[in-house]
This record gives sequence, C-alpha cells and structure tokens, in this order.
Amino acid sequence: MEFTVLKKDKITAARLGKLVLAHGEVDTPCFMPVGTQATVKSTTPEELKELGAQMILGNTYHLGLRPGIEIIKKAGGLHKFMHWDRPILTDSGGYQVFSLADLREITPEGVTFRDHIEGSLHTLTPEKSIRIQQALGADVIMVFDECPGYPVDYDYTCKSLELTLQWALRSRKAHTDGSQILFGIVQGSVFKDLRKKSIEGLEEIGFAGYGLGGLSVGEPKELMFELAEYTVGIMPADKPRYIMGTGTPEDLITQIAYGADMFDCTVPTRYGRNGTVFTPYGKLVVRNAKYKDDHRPIDEECGCYACRNYSRAYIRHLFNTGEILGNRLGTLHNLYFYQDFMRKARVAIREGVYERFQKEFLDRFGKSVEAGNKE
Amino acid sequence: MEFTVLKKDKITAARLGKLVLAHGEVDTPCFMPVGTQATVKSTTPEELKELGAQMILGNTYHLGLRPGIEIIKKAGGLHKFMHWDRPILTDSGGYQVFSLADLREITPEGVTFRDHIEGSLHTLTPEKSIRIQQALGADVIMVFDECPGYPVDYDYTCKSLELTLQWALRSRKAHTDGSQILFGIVQGSVFKDLRKKSIEGLEEIGFAGYGLGGLSVGEPKELMFELAEYTVGIMPADKPRYIMGTGTPEDLITQIAYGADMFDCTVPTRYGRNGTVFTPYGKLVVRNAKYKDDHRPIDEECGCYACRNYSRAYIRHLFNTGEILGNRLGTLHNLYFYQDFMRKARVAIREGVYERFQKEFLDRFGKSVEAGNKE
Repeated sequence: MEFTVLKKDKITAARLGKLVLAHGEVDTPCFMPVGTQATVKSTTPEELKELGAQMILGNTYHLGLRPGIEIIKKAGGLHKFMHWDRPILTDSGGYQVFSLADLREITPEGVTFRDHIEGSLHTLTPEKSIRIQQALGADVIMVFDECPGYPVDYDYTCKSLELTLQWALRSRKAHTDGSQILFGIVQGSVFKDLRKKSIEGLEEIGFAGYGLGGLSVGEPKELMFELAEYTVGIMPADKPRYIMGTGTPEDLITQIAYGADMFDCTVPTRYGRNGTVFTPYGKLVVRNAKYKDDHRPIDEECGCYACRNYSRAYIRHLFNTGEILGNRLGTLHNLYFYQDFMRKARVAIREGVYERFQKEFLDRFGKSVEAGNKE
Repeated sequence: MEFTVLKKDKITAARLGKLVLAHGEVDTPCFMPVGTQATVKSTTPEELKELGAQMILGNTYHLGLRPGIEIIKKAGGLHKFMHWDRPILTDSGGYQVFSLADLREITPEGVTFRDHIEGSLHTLTPEKSIRIQQALGADVIMVFDECPGYPVDYDYTCKSLELTLQWALRSRKAHTDGSQILFGIVQGSVFKDLRKKSIEGLEEIGFAGYGLGGLSVGEPKELMFELAEYTVGIMPADKPRYIMGTGTPEDLITQIAYGADMFDCTVPTRYGRNGTVFTPYGKLVVRNAKYKDDHRPIDEECGCYACRNYSRAYIRHLFNTGEILGNRLGTLHNLYFYQDFMRKARVAIREGVYERFQKEFLDRFGKSVEAGNKE
C-alpha cells in the first residue's frame, strides 16, 4: 500500500498520482462510483470495469443493516459478496447516522440511533465501525466521525471537533488489519481555524490518507469551494486527499485544481437512472418529450455503450415506458462520462495543461445543450 | 426464407427444424423472449445473444402506441431502433386489442377501441396491422385475428372464426414485403371441429407458417393440452407451428412432443424480474428470506452469468433492497434456463431420445426445490 505523487501542475495545485492498494492500482485524481448496497445501482462489475472504474465505494451503515455484516463475512467479504475484485473504499457510517437515522444520543463513547428501515435501536462506536469495516474487507476504510450540519455555531463545532479527534485516535487504535489502510476525516464546518486544527490533530495521530468531510451539507456553493480550496491546500501533501460526497462535473474539475486526489458522489448514477445525462455541453434531460424523434446518440463523440448503440429517441422511449434498460443506459453513460473526464484531467496534468483543460471544460459545460436544441 | 424439418422423433411427434429468415437462422423448437416495448425487459441485446436467444418477439399494439410507428420507421425499423440484429416476430395486435384495450366495436371492417394508456380512440384493420408490421420490419409477421376469451359458446365462435378467416385473407393480400414471412393464426376456441375448419380455411389461403392462438386464455390446463395436441397434430407438417403466448417449462416440454416448433411467453422474464427463478428441480423464490444466508448459486449446475458469479444470498439481498441488478440477474438466469432446456430438447430429438428427456425433465422439475430446502 503506497501513494506516489507522479507530477504536480505548475499553475494550479492539481497533481497526478498512483495509489497502490490490496486489490489493485488506482490512478489519481480518481472518481469512485457509489455502491451503497453492495451494487452500483443498475450495473454489473464487468460494466464498471469496461467504462474504466478502478475503485468503488460501499456504505457501512447500509450494509450493516442489510444484509448485515455476518452474512457478508460468511460470503468472504464485500468483494466476493458483490463480485468486484478491484479496490473498494468503505465509509465509517458516521455521515449516514447523522443524515439518515433518527439520532437518539451522542456520548463520548459513541452514537445511539434508530435506523431508517425498521427503526431498531443501534449503537455505533469508533471501535465498532472499524471492526465492521475490517469484516467488510475494503481496501480503504474511514475513521468514525461526527459530521455537523449547516449552519452550526463555532462553540458546537469546537466540541464536535474535539470528540471527532478522540474518535479518530480510537479508530486508529482499533485498526489492526494490515491489508487495509485507514484515512482520517477533516471536520470543522465553515471555520478555517478549526479545519486547520482538525488537520493538525489528525496528522499527530497519523493516517495513510485524509478525507475532507462536512462539505456539501447545505452551505452556499461559493463557500464550499472556498473551504475546499483552503482545506485541501493545507492537507498533508504526501498523502491522498479525498473530498467526500461531492459532486457535479464542475465540482470535480474545480477541486482537482485545488489538489484533491479522490472523489465519490451519487450524482452520475442518480441522475442517469432518472433520465438526466451529462454531455460536454451540459446536462441533457433525455427523458423529455422533445427527444422522442431525435435519432442521434446522447453525445456524438461519446464512446460509451449507450452512445455507440442507441438513439436519444430510443432511450427516451425506454424512460417513457418505465423500462429498466433506460435506467441502465443513463447510468452507464454518466459513469463513462465521469471516468472519461477524469482520464482527460489526468492527461492534462501529465502534459502540464490542466488550467487550459479546466477552462475549456467549464466553458463548454456551462453551455446548456438543452437551450441549444430548439428543434 | 425457408423452413426445413431436419428430423422427426419416432415415438413422440417432436421435430427438429431450421427456420431461415431475413436476419438469420433459428433452430427449432425455439423459445422467443418477449420484447413488448422494443426491449426484453431489463436486458441488452448482447446479453440475449450470450444466453443463446436467436429470435425475439415485439408487440405491434404496444409499439404502435409508444413510441409510435412513425418514430420506429424513421429509426430504420424495429431492429435498428432497439439494436437487435437477429430475427424478430411481431404479433398483429389482435390479442392485445381484445385483452388490454377498452373494446368499442367489432365490425367486418375491423376493430375500434380505446387504448389502455391514454384512452384515445383507434381503429385496427387487417390492412392496417400488416402495414404497421411491414413498417416495423420484423422477419415474421402475423395476420390480424379475433381472439375470443374463455368460455365462449359455439355459435359465437363460428361467427368469430368466419370473420377471422376473412381477415386472414385480407392480411394475406395486404402483405407485399418479400423480406418478411406471414403466418396465419388458428382459432376456434375449445371446439375441435372449428379448429379443423380454421386450419383448412387458412391452408386454402396459404401461409408460410401457422400460429396456434386462443390457448391459455382461462381454460383448464388439461383442456389446453388436449386442444394443443389435437390442433398441432393437424397443422400443416411442412410449415412452422407456433404456439402463441404459452408458457411454463412444463408447457413447452410437453408441447414440443405434440410437434410444436415455436414458442413465446412472458413467464421467464416476468418471474425472474420479480425474484422467482427456475431450476431443474422446480421454481425457487430467491427473494424469500430463507435464502438470505445461502451462499450457493441459484443452481450449482447452471452456466448462466448469475450462477457463475453470484450467490442466492446476494441476489436475495438485491431483491430485498429493491436493487435493479436483482431484476437483471433473475431475468438472465430464467432466460438462460429456457434457452438451455430448448437446446437440450433439440439434442434429445436429434439423438432420438426425446420421450426419455421429457420424462426425466418433468420428473425432476416436479420436485419442488422450495420443499427440499428446509434449512
């Protein structure tokens, strides 16, 4: 397990890297499709590989509820259970406990909550989260943290951060499986001094990589970018920097320039599954009636399975009639689009032209293909 | 376009054949997966080919409503629209008009009805059905017929049959596209003399093949088998015999022995999509909680994509969490199971052991795997 920065951009803070993990190598900056319930919705592992995904994400909270850790353990771990043999990252469950569950109590020991499925009472502690993640067998696992919402006041954030740092230390101590690497999570809400304090505290404990949490929780977009740029800029340079749970193509292209290495988000799968697809010229709502007689592919220049073989008219028909193949094609296209622009971003960093790539991408993407198609 | 009987079984009336069509060859007896809305639900054409499907079915009634014939015509026909380059059979819309639509009036000219989606008023005539099927561009098209329900009295059936024969003649005259072959449809409900009369009337007009319609419309199973055996036995021996819209694996294995060559049914896709899968030992409801910790494949001996790569526990988890991959795997398994037992049936006919194959298949299949798994 090692992380190497292969090249640093001279104008932006973008960097090209390689992450070597138990189940294979990952080129960074990378985008991880989200496989919440042991499946990246609507796809097979073979399809994910074909479109270039090197690493996916699984959710400890959801998998712990269904099917339950014991079943995945008996299957030989998450990789075997879901038939995916490349790297996996699991989160700690912290974010879901604070966003999905019916929270009962936070104590220094851990969190008590009722789950969002059956309403049963559960307790999650740093030790338990790490134990579960070790049973799942992901390549990268995350510390258990408290993730405050937005807005939140300075005093609460201070206390929360202190607790999160204690939990990070306990997570670190509970982590015993050498085939997995453990990442710390930077918190501190919108307060830059607390973000800095969070990083210093985590560095003191020492982790193989660092996640940036508590972003995209309701704050304005400009503030999100400002915080991401500031925080990524002071995260350890020799370790992978992972911005958690964000975002749109614009978010990724922008945050790569801040020096971020890893991303995950449900945007491509959720949008694609519901009939909104990405193109170099922006989003296209292929489920709309205006595409019913449009026999061009979603994107003429795209090399994905959907664009090589099907028209907008056909895909629109599938959404209009509620056919599963529509969800599949929208998902495959969007995931390909994400992997493809990440590939292009890596090439641009290698060739020292990331700033130009970023500008051209954002200029084109800002043009709405919807507005341009007035047929 | 030609049909050749390659071998006849000596004990049963089963026969091995080959049907050469505009888009390729089909080994008979064959099973056609149903692609009602220009997609075999949840699958891609590549997946259908991989599991051995040589020909699929499309529904004129549904495609005429959504997306509409003009759009498919502009796409270059149904094959291009849906990215399937092997043979397709389309039905005439007759069955759906009588089973799905809100029927307004049957006249000698045709049928007026309100569709089941928007309730708009439509008229379908033999000429219009053939014109639509020519625009869709299927390899095999069907005459427009009236399909009486069950039970129905003798007098009504007589009159209905007369009308259906007139419509068959008009369908034949309207059929001008030499790249497609046209099948007649045998009606006559449960009355053997009318079934015979139907066949004689159709033979006089002359068709490239014959469908057996009006079965599995509510009559008892034994009566269905009795009628199928009688009718298939007097259908022209030098033309393909197609039993329409039936059925279970038992139905197919039994009716092959009567001399039937072609089948279609929604059973494998509908069951699979909803979590009931077929095994040599009968149906298995993989969505049931009893499989949540069962790490064997659906069927140890099955060679399908689902059985090669996933456990019952995983597939059960997918159904339990509403994940699309569950619908996909159930569908792929069942379609493979159907294609596989049709392959085995063809081998048995070739080797002159169909009767033994049939007996062994039905004996094993009659054993419920559900009852056998009492863990």
